[in-house]
Amino acid sequence: MIRVGIVGGTGYTGVELLRLLAQHPHVELMAITSRKEDGMPVAEMFPSLRGRVALTFTDPASAPLAQCDAVFFATPHGVAMEQARELLAKGVKVIDLAADFRLKDPAEFERWYKTPHTCTDLLAEAVYGLPEVNRDAIRAACLIGLPGCYPTSVQLGLLPVLEHGGLIDTSSLIADCKSGVSGAGRKAEVPILLAEAGDNFKAYSVGGHRHWPEITQGLKAIAATAGKAQGANDLRITFVPHLTPMIRGIHSTLYARVLSHAQGFDFQKLYEERYAAEPFVDVLPAGSHPETRSVRASNFVRIALHRPPESDLLVILVVEDNLVKGASGQAVQVMNIMFGLPETAGLGHVPVLP
Amino acid sequence: MIRVGIVGGTGYTGVELLRLLAQHPHVELMAITSRKEDGMPVAEMFPSLRGRVALTFTDPASAPLAQCDAVFFATPHGVAMEQARELLAKGVKVIDLAADFRLKDPAEFERWYKTPHTCTDLLAEAVYGLPEVNRDAIRAACLIGLPGCYPTSVQLGLLPVLEHGGLIDTSSLIADCKSGVSGAGRKAEVPILLAEAGDNFKAYSVGGHRHWPEITQGLKAIAATAGKAQGANDLRITFVPHLTPMIRGIHSTLYARVLSHAQGFDFQKLYEERYAAEPFVDVLPAGSHPETRSVRASNFVRIALHRPPESDLLVILVVEDNLVKGASGQAVQVMNIMFGLPETAGLGHVPVLP
Amino acid sequence: MIRVGIVGGTGYTGVELLRLLAQHPHVELMAITSRKEDGMPVAEMFPSLRGRVALTFTDPASAPLAQCDAVFFATPHGVAMEQARELLAKGVKVIDLAADFRLKDPAEFERWYKTPHTCTDLLAEAVYGLPEVNRDAIRAACLIGLPGCYPTSVQLGLLPVLEHGGLIDTSSLIADCKSGVSGAGRKAEVPILLAEAGDNFKAYSVGGHRHWPEITQGLKAIAATAGKAQGANDLRITFVPHLTPMIRGIHSTLYARVLSHAQGFDFQKLYEERYAAEPFVDVLPAGSHPETRSVRASNFVRIALHRPPESDLLVILVVEDNLVKGASGQAVQVMNIMFGLPETAGLGHVPVLP
Amino acid sequence: MIRVGIVGGTGYTGVELLRLLAQHPHVELMAITSRKEDGMPVAEMFPSLRGRVALTFTDPASAPLAQCDAVFFATPHGVAMEQARELLAKGVKVIDLAADFRLKDPAEFERWYKTPHTCTDLLAEAVYGLPEVNRDAIRAACLIGLPGCYPTSVQLGLLPVLEHGGLIDTSSLIADCKSGVSGAGRKAEVPILLAEAGDNFKAYSVGGHRHWPEITQGLKAIAATAGKAQGANDLRITFVPHLTPMIRGIHSTLYARVLSHAQGFDFQKLYEERYAAEPFVDVLPAGSHPETRSVRASNFVRIALHRPPESDLLVILVVEDNLVKGASGQAVQVMNIMFGLPETAGLGHVPVLP
Repeated sequence: MIRVGIVGGTGYTGVELLRLLAQHPHVELMAITSRKEDGMPVAEMFPSLRGRVALTFTDPASAPLAQCDAVFFATPHGVAMEQARELLAKGVKVIDLAADFRLKDPAEFERWYKTPHTCTDLLAEAVYGLPEVNRDAIRAACLIGLPGCYPTSVQLGLLPVLEHGGLIDTSSLIADCKSGVSGAGRKAEVPILLAEAGDNFKAYSVGGHRHWPEITQGLKAIAATAGKAQGANDLRITFVPHLTPMIRGIHSTLYARVLSHAQGFDFQKLYEERYAAEPFVDVLPAGSHPETRSVRASNFVRIALHRPPESDLLVILVVEDNLVKGASGQAVQVMNIMFGLPETAGLGHVPVLP
Repeated sequence: MIRVGIVGGTGYTGVELLRLLAQHPHVELMAITSRKEDGMPVAEMFPSLRGRVALTFTDPASAPLAQCDAVFFATPHGVAMEQARELLAKGVKVIDLAADFRLKDPAEFERWYKTPHTCTDLLAEAVYGLPEVNRDAIRAACLIGLPGCYPTSVQLGLLPVLEHGGLIDTSSLIADCKSGVSGAGRKAEVPILLAEAGDNFKAYSVGGHRHWPEITQGLKAIAATAGKAQGANDLRITFVPHLTPMIRGIHSTLYARVLSHAQGFDFQKLYEERYAAEPFVDVLPAGSHPETRSVRASNFVRIALHRPPESDLLVILVVEDNLVKGASGQAVQVMNIMFGLPETAGLGHVPVLP
Repeated sequence: MIRVGIVGGTGYTGVELLRLLAQHPHVELMAITSRKEDGMPVAEMFPSLRGRVALTFTDPASAPLAQCDAVFFATPHGVAMEQARELLAKGVKVIDLAADFRLKDPAEFERWYKTPHTCTDLLAEAVYGLPEVNRDAIRAACLIGLPGCYPTSVQLGLLPVLEHGGLIDTSSLIADCKSGVSGAGRKAEVPILLAEAGDNFKAYSVGGHRHWPEITQGLKAIAATAGKAQGANDLRITFVPHLTPMIRGIHSTLYARVLSHAQGFDFQKLYEERYAAEPFVDVLPAGSHPETRSVRASNFVRIALHRPPESDLLVILVVEDNLVKGASGQAVQVMNIMFGLPETAGLGHVPVLP
Repeated sequence: MIRVGIVGGTGYTGVELLRLLAQHPHVELMAITSRKEDGMPVAEMFPSLRGRVALTFTDPASAPLAQCDAVFFATPHGVAMEQARELLAKGVKVIDLAADFRLKDPAEFERWYKTPHTCTDLLAEAVYGLPEVNRDAIRAACLIGLPGCYPTSVQLGLLPVLEHGGLIDTSSLIADCKSGVSGAGRKAEVPILLAEAGDNFKAYSVGGHRHWPEITQGLKAIAATAGKAQGANDLRITFVPHLTPMIRGIHSTLYARVLSHAQGFDFQKLYEERYAAEPFVDVLPAGSHPETRSVRASNFVRIALHRPPESDLLVILVVEDNLVKGASGQAVQVMNIMFGLPETAGLGHVPVLP
């Protein structure tokens, strides 16, 4: 049994980790920390866990994190980079669901998160936890920077075509993404009240969202790894996130201009072959329209490809549950890989529909 | 492994059965029938099942139902009573999720469902599938009439106080119930469109709902079994169902007038003791307000008791997922009992929150 | 033209007042105050008002409130009782949408609002602003305590039967009420986030809600005014509010036990006659099920009566828009009465459906 | 007073027309037709109209349409082209909210609507009812083909930049549009049930939507009128519509590649100047994120412009209420123009927020 601790379990990624780990056959939940809620049973804050999770929030100071095999940080950014070093020194593997170990360039981190990176040596050895791209590196890693919710869907949507290279104009990519409000976290803020965000739709952060540099970094890395340095260098993507009145789910609509010599290319086959062995990426038949609810509460990503009429665009539709494959489910998948467990252990949930 | 067939799998209780049974450790899915969709993979109609359920809809005529150990009817009323006899004759256990085997009095059935009961001998031996009331009878049964969604919540909410007897005025009960729209089924009808039922709230069928005679029959049976014949005879309940703009979930608010000599009675203790050994009924601390999402996609029922100020009423709040404990989950629970499996097998889902 | 000021316009009742008053033919908007947002155009906070309302938030200290004919307080409780005296002294009529002038007994106010009432002399002369009950007193009033959203629907639902007297058991009334989340205000609080309150249903404050003493006071007053002192003295109502996942709307389901001699009484006729001349109270045909959306964004209340089968209960269904007839619309109606305008002026909106 | 008739009033554009026209100061509602509901008061089908609209549905055969000044067709496509000729012959002005008179090329109509156009002579003289483009032609018109909901938002979003010419690459436009479900109409269909479309997001008709040829035709006409024949000829737009879980509202996110010489162009100024005199088109400050609710139940369109970082794209955000400016409100605006009324008559509604 893997002994697991969670730092910061009062948000949505925390409660989702608890949901998944409580049903995981190879995991023993050891501790969940919260300075503010020290002593409160987690099931008191989240009655959905009554009868399933007996843990009590513990102050981080006294939590037995060092005795865990793995610790998840389900905290705001800035926490993991302060605490990871000590845990790693004691042999604990660390998976950060926040942003501390995503961006490889500390200057970029500082630019977007408005705080200096205090742990740049660890940053250099951290592995970006996207299994479909980095499975081998994850297997050997001690420290994981888990991808953000939007970046997971955008990278998985573009991975096959970027890896292949030479098919699309990488300098003019567009990601028009729509997220449910749980992506904004369990925070007391007016714009995500039901009376504000309900029956309403809007874009936000079009001028610059923190996931944009992460997406760009990830796509460039994919193109470069595949030996498409040229495609990588001039890769540019415009990212427009939107808030949609639902709880869970991200739908990314990706636009890539197909190069003229590749207009007849069989993209459907490329995607099906690339993902044939991936347990959580499902390529739908050509012309399908994936729904976010078709992955609700599961670790699946579903992808469909379109070539609209009289258009030189490849349109890629990607759906994921932002709290599962976009966060806590991916964290469990990564843990499974790090500990040599079956990659799908504890992640066999059938999506909840309706 | 229990070999299982499903008749009529294109509705919500059907797809929910598939979700639960696909993850059940002791079940092999053998067949799912649909006359209209013969030959279509179920995962084509419900993409949420892609990669998890490989079954194809079969015409009932050619489906291997007779080779199953158990067959679930997830059909409209009227189907099970036509087909159950043949299956039972071949030793197949039958669980009807519709109304054919709920009401013990064929005249009542005909009055509420506007069609004669064509199978009254089987009706006499059918067992009402509410485990918390009828566990022993279920264990020995071959034919189950599964409770409706509203009746499950109302009966579980009143069970302890009725069984005890002598505490409340059984002639003036009120059940003010609120249901998500999946309770109306997967039917193309204008009033349950998102543009009609969304951001909207209303009562319906106040003049008489089909679940009302079932609730009355169930409550009378509980009172009578407990030797409270008097309470049973004059038992009367007013049932007002409402449609609430959500997908899953029933919240029943029950009002019972406490008899004057019982004003000081410890109802909280009564409920906690009655349900202490029940795996799926959770009595919350006194004064709690259970939320429907705290049981979403799980087989739990959660109950809380209140004694409002300056009131002689006991107010009982009950939440369930209408598609799980209110239908398909309860069906699986009943199947587990009938086949001597652990009662919680395949039902360990942690509720999905948020 | 009536010159109007609004104190505290950053909440939902404030922006709704602006919506209604901006279209009112006899009103000139003079000032809207907010200490925090001094200098910000209201249309910047509420883009829905762009092109329709040119006002800017002003600090209360410098706002020309004393030059208004009427001032609305769309503030939390406790503000109006500090500022009303000065305005009244200058001849300004004051309408408080909060709770300061609702409860006639200062001790009750203190008990429920946890703060002493600092203005008890004005409280004594304040008029409770429910036009269907108090129209004449409102006409002569200078200071209005406007009813709460729940109390409006409950009182209008029970008014005809209480006024008549001798028909129902007034000691065992029940109000099972369901409200959209805008009733909780525009406040940054976790439980009313879309990701918390969406696709979810729960009761709250069953142990005691601030609107309960107001409802009780109002119903007793109605019974007493009608010379039914006996009905008034022992009048008791159990009030159970629920949160439903929608933005606007209250649906109150009221239960009253019909006295045995009145079982055959024509309640439908009583209600139709009582409300025949009321411009905003609509009695539906017997057996109807009013929907909250049928009054959305309008000042209507719709009521339907039911006598369920085998029940001695009268069930009364009442819908209102909590922000209009439950708050800002009623405030405008009251203002119209106070200033001798047509009572429906500026309130002719057709409900928005769908 | 303009005497007005409505053909086919049982859908959402019909009831919205009634809402708007019932409050219009210069309109007298004469007739509303429905073969199926002949004799039923409209307020029985739509209780929101009780006390405001006294009309009864009439069979088209006996409705006094020929005595009207204007008749609106709120019908499915195919109806107006059968009945318009007779009305026009009697001097009645006709406004078709469906698709019969939108596409100028009968072959295109037949291709997309799978039925021959039976009225091609009238089609030739019909005016496309987009006031911001065609105001003068509308003033003189007898027959209007009203724009679709998506085309209205896309054309208004691109109008200034296309009229100006020479700023963007017109061969690679993208319209990523998101609509509430009322856009699908009041039809009993499974995919738009609350239990299907709620808490869910998906694209649809990516392979070809009926509004795509209309959008293309409209944009080409704009470019051509402005003497940009070259821009018009090669104009191509990729249109991807999505269904979002809300009732009303369209959010269009438009992407246009800025030509290299125009990278420093002041698009904000262009849009503000172009729309300065338009009563219903509101250009927000640069960098804003318009919300659909900011125009809910009103005839406004709001537009915001963005130049995302490191991108050569102009991103245009457009919101409208699909039932108002996207249908019935625009129809009233067009009627006002045709009859020489103030263009904003009956359209002064302040958007409903929250």
